[in-house]
Amino acid sequence: MQVLHMNKGEGEISYAKNSTVQRKIISVANSMVEEAVIDILCKNFPESMGIADLGCSSGSNTLMVIWEIINIVCAMSHQTGRSVPELRVSLNDLPGNDFNDLFLSLPSFYNKLKEEKCTGLERCFISGMPGSFYGRLFPSKSIHFVHSSSSLHWLSQVPASLDSKASVPLNKGKIYISETSPICVLEAYLLQFQNDFSLFLESRSEEMVPGGRMVLSFMGRRSSESSVGQSCHHWELLAKALMSMVSEGLVQEEKIDSFNTPYYAPSLEELKSEFQKEGSFIIDRIEGFEIDWDGGASSNCVTQDQFTTFATLSSGQRVAKTVRAVVESMLECHFGTGIMDELFRRYSEIVDDHLSKTRAKFINLVVSVIKKG
Amino acid sequence: MQVLHMNKGEGEISYAKNSTVQRKIISVANSMVEEAVIDILCKNFPESMGIADLGCSSGSNTLMVIWEIINIVCAMSHQTGRSVPELRVSLNDLPGNDFNDLFLSLPSFYNKLKEEKCTGLERCFISGMPGSFYGRLFPSKSIHFVHSSSSLHWLSQVPASLDSKASVPLNKGKIYISETSPICVLEAYLLQFQNDFSLFLESRSEEMVPGGRMVLSFMGRRSSESSVGQSCHHWELLAKALMSMVSEGLVQEEKIDSFNTPYYAPSLEELKSEFQKEGSFIIDRIEGFEIDWDGGASSNCVTQDQFTTFATLSSGQRVAKTVRAVVESMLECHFGTGIMDELFRRYSEIVDDHLSKTRAKFINLVVSVIKKG
Repeated sequence: MQVLHMNKGEGEISYAKNSTVQRKIISVANSMVEEAVIDILCKNFPESMGIADLGCSSGSNTLMVIWEIINIVCAMSHQTGRSVPELRVSLNDLPGNDFNDLFLSLPSFYNKLKEEKCTGLERCFISGMPGSFYGRLFPSKSIHFVHSSSSLHWLSQVPASLDSKASVPLNKGKIYISETSPICVLEAYLLQFQNDFSLFLESRSEEMVPGGRMVLSFMGRRSSESSVGQSCHHWELLAKALMSMVSEGLVQEEKIDSFNTPYYAPSLEELKSEFQKEGSFIIDRIEGFEIDWDGGASSNCVTQDQFTTFATLSSGQRVAKTVRAVVESMLECHFGTGIMDELFRRYSEIVDDHLSKTRAKFINLVVSVIKKG
Repeated sequence: MQVLHMNKGEGEISYAKNSTVQRKIISVANSMVEEAVIDILCKNFPESMGIADLGCSSGSNTLMVIWEIINIVCAMSHQTGRSVPELRVSLNDLPGNDFNDLFLSLPSFYNKLKEEKCTGLERCFISGMPGSFYGRLFPSKSIHFVHSSSSLHWLSQVPASLDSKASVPLNKGKIYISETSPICVLEAYLLQFQNDFSLFLESRSEEMVPGGRMVLSFMGRRSSESSVGQSCHHWELLAKALMSMVSEGLVQEEKIDSFNTPYYAPSLEELKSEFQKEGSFIIDRIEGFEIDWDGGASSNCVTQDQFTTFATLSSGQRVAKTVRAVVESMLECHFGTGIMDELFRRYSEIVDDHLSKTRAKFINLVVSVIKKG
């Protein structure tokens, strides 16, 4: 938790410049976000509305979601002839997130809101809440809408039996659940997911008002897949890239044996089961979407610059850039900074080779739930 | 507003390492903070308490104040046999502040709170609120206690008639009100202070609950002093250091003519008058304190390292380091980065010379007010 953060700043390997896949995922969940926000306003139009984005990261994706939500609230207020509620927007991420970069973009965001000429929007208060969403973040009954995208597949920690301090390496040569992993590895990951997710739900349950809504979107796997499926295969390939460096003495094999990723991609069924156990939320919709590994067409690029850069890259290079922006902080801490360029060069080649044989897709789960009254 | 921020990080010229004077000022206001917090809890013990630190900056001073406040709340809860209120703590500063540094220190702060073993403290939620306090920051009637230290002497902007875009330089060779400044300079500064401070009070008035308290502490001047007094003389000496570089061709004279500091040190009377005009607050206590330019004895140093470093410095060097950590971002933007080391070297010599002739003091005003019910 102290180590994981998206790559900071606005540079070539930054998350801000390499989050096309995450942007695609946000747009897929958009209709569910719209439905949920409209539902909140129809059922009990609040004077003051608490909105939280969990795992907000930094870069343009973060405020894009908030912008959509505010637009829906404005339109609904206008339609129903009511004043726009006071908006309390909380942007949450771990303390190591690049909040500075995010906050520097706020003045222009507020200016954009002003240009909307939607009366009442001057009472929009955007704050940052550093902390883990696997625990309490907000005051009791203060939040009406929770959004989280591309974050909940991160566990609070590597399962204890698999972390670098474990005496016996259980998952040799791999960094996530793999076909060769012993069953205890699968069990350890599932248990960690269950513990984390139930803590997530308990915390949100206390923070949300009755009738509040939550739209969560994160990596999962097909129900038909075992714990390790095509949709998690990017970890398998990253392990392969690391192992290729062992043979040349660039990485120690023990380093790989003692490293596992704090990540879990649940199936729809595993997810539903956690909601049922906790019991405070009603599932309104739950769906899985396929997303191309490289975020599909480069039409999702934010700027012309990004478009030009991305268009000249192979799919493998695009995937490598996307994955690097997210996992580098974690890998650097274990393997050292020096091997990163070489690792991701090899990774991009391995991914290109893989994609030439298979049409690989991420599975993104989106679930929309209602807090019981 | 886009430019002013304390020097970031933890390095030699950072604010975090050079804020001994500000720490001294906080300790001077401590008894007023204690009185005010106790008064809030005695009159109407809240279930959920909103606390805001305005102009929090980063470094150890920020959380020191919050720590004191939480300790008072805990002790009072214990004495009166009530549960500790849910604490909503907002740390505010301009968007360019180093919030990353501040947020990274939160996990150890939360751990320290846990060790206090004061039941209920797990419901302490610390967030960052980027924005100008010369405008709305928080939801209506959400805040019980406002603290601000060493921030309100910064204006929202250089008075328009004196800023770098003004066609005629009115304050030649100076960077703040000086004895040689024409009366229109004094008037422009006073007007800017009045506009800013009234906006500050109007905003807080909407955000605070009736009976809420505010303790504000910032640079002022003796009532007996004209607009330019000994207590503002550090600007006069900084102008002198800049002018000494003009004669050697290191700085263009026009650059100095077109620069003025967005700062104002009001007298007690000017301050009282703003509270009276706005009308939502009752002044409980208002006082002026003298503070040595270099923060007094080096006993205020946070660490042994800092002590050792500070002990070897002359008073002038200590003053130069303190002033540099605060104003460098602003000066760099106008004069360029290149001259900073040389400028502050000259400044430290000029200050040493000055202090050998005069016992120079800052005047720090502290005012404690109650929001009318």
